[in-house]
Amino acid sequence: MNEIKIFSPASVANISCGFDVLGVCLNNIGDEMVIRKTKKKGVVISKVHGDRDIPLDNKKNVAAISASSLLNKISINHGFEIEIFKGIKSGSGIGSSAASSAGSVFGINKLIEKPFSKNELIKFAMEGEKKASGTAHADNVAPLICGGITLIRSTTEIDVINLPIPDKLFLTIIHPKIKLKTSDSRSILKHKVSLKKTIDQMANLGGFISGLYTNDFNLIKRSLKDVIVEPTRSILIPEFYKIKKSAIDNGALGSGIAGSGPSIYAMVKGEKKARKVGEAMSEILIKIGLEFNLHVSEINRNGIKVLSKK
Amino acid sequence: MNEIKIFSPASVANISCGFDVLGVCLNNIGDEMVIRKTKKKGVVISKVHGDRDIPLDNKKNVAAISASSLLNKISINHGFEIEIFKGIKSGSGIGSSAASSAGSVFGINKLIEKPFSKNELIKFAMEGEKKASGTAHADNVAPLICGGITLIRSTTEIDVINLPIPDKLFLTIIHPKIKLKTSDSRSILKHKVSLKKTIDQMANLGGFISGLYTNDFNLIKRSLKDVIVEPTRSILIPEFYKIKKSAIDNGALGSGIAGSGPSIYAMVKGEKKARKVGEAMSEILIKIGLEFNLHVSEINRNGIKVLSKK
Repeated sequence: MNEIKIFSPASVANISCGFDVLGVCLNNIGDEMVIRKTKKKGVVISKVHGDRDIPLDNKKNVAAISASSLLNKISINHGFEIEIFKGIKSGSGIGSSAASSAGSVFGINKLIEKPFSKNELIKFAMEGEKKASGTAHADNVAPLICGGITLIRSTTEIDVINLPIPDKLFLTIIHPKIKLKTSDSRSILKHKVSLKKTIDQMANLGGFISGLYTNDFNLIKRSLKDVIVEPTRSILIPEFYKIKKSAIDNGALGSGIAGSGPSIYAMVKGEKKARKVGEAMSEILIKIGLEFNLHVSEINRNGIKVLSKK
Repeated sequence: MNEIKIFSPASVANISCGFDVLGVCLNNIGDEMVIRKTKKKGVVISKVHGDRDIPLDNKKNVAAISASSLLNKISINHGFEIEIFKGIKSGSGIGSSAASSAGSVFGINKLIEKPFSKNELIKFAMEGEKKASGTAHADNVAPLICGGITLIRSTTEIDVINLPIPDKLFLTIIHPKIKLKTSDSRSILKHKVSLKKTIDQMANLGGFISGLYTNDFNLIKRSLKDVIVEPTRSILIPEFYKIKKSAIDNGALGSGIAGSGPSIYAMVKGEKKARKVGEAMSEILIKIGLEFNLHVSEINRNGIKVLSKK
């Protein structure tokens, strides 16, 4: 095999109660990447389609950074060329950098006949995330590598748990067309949290996870709360609370900031309702004349997918 | 029915990763309480056996306080007399006040033919806990009322989730005979937690809960960590880290402070190993000549139990 084409999906990290520990893989939004073996050693980003702001430079491109951290661990006498077709807008909050970081190492691992485990791929992909956001978090790359809904128990020793996915669980995502860099969105976070809020967030995370295991949509609904990050970050997102309220008023189980924003997610039971929630969220942005993209997605149980090989 | 005798068990709150949200009901350690209807309205603590320090005064006795908060919600033309046989040492960290607070309302509710739900009983029992510790926490009273291992998702609207109990899960508890008042043990807690530690604690709580649902003892073991409370509270407990290490070295899944201490719990798979862990923990205290009590208990799935009625 000399060339592989993959689909590297978008993802939603945090999910309100799970800051930096929960991530969900999406289905029909994502990048495509073509990775080819080259005679020359190392990695080259040959072209990025669909986003002029993404650098090709190996020291700045996150796909190259994660690929290089993988290549540093093996000795092979050839290299790789990566062509990226961006479907995810960078700075949207739904894992644009993660799709590139995880996609490149997933694809290269296939081309070199899978010497690395999922956990090792996550570790490499985190290097790309570190470049993008300033911290080596795994909440977007883990669901891409492992599929579904993931809990990051630890990133020092990589420990990722695949949580169960209740049937008919959809995410509706609205992306207001303003750009928020993850690093900026992280920099406004408070470094200290009150013990009371820590306990509340833990309680809700525990409730959410229990709800997933027991298919208890009502418990999921009660638990989708964020008392730590949302109060601070939401000020960066126009009409955040109105959009969130409209989602919940229209039947969403919960709604909050997708990753570091500005996208807003809503978790909804059933596709029809997920589309209705999307319309309601859209109306708020139409009213203020702010452009947006809207996505409705089932949860992707498989993560990154191989489209073709040759 | 004019009289009821109940067994109100001990409990272990927190369980390392679940400060203020997790609690476990124990099996063979607890108080007995006899509750009798009286002609005179209101509640009287007629006698406390086994602990001279516990006040009989209605405004100070936690069983009376929780009972009164229940009685304030109903109109009946008689009252209750409560006789308490303490089996749990107060200030031990294994829910002595909770056994009294929850036992009195559980028993009275039976005598008045159960008008109140479990959640309502928890609310009443929390009034006793508030007196004992300064905050109205539910992590000890909930497992007594609901049985098993409980997650407190919320105490504003009482929301308690019964978590699954893997087979052969035992708790070994060593109680060094020093007395720690919950209110003192709470007062040394830091009111602010770093965001990093909050995330780590959330991740471990999520891992622990997942481990319970999937019977994954290895995941339970990896998750039984406390980065928030243990570093501060452990300084109040002689040889804490040595005892914890000896428990883990001898096969415990995890070990930490039981509730607000000074008792130390170890979670162990299998009764034989739980007893071996108990011996190892004991040796540390024997070496320094500090008296202790040792308990080995399976998890009590049913909570408070009726012993007799008449």
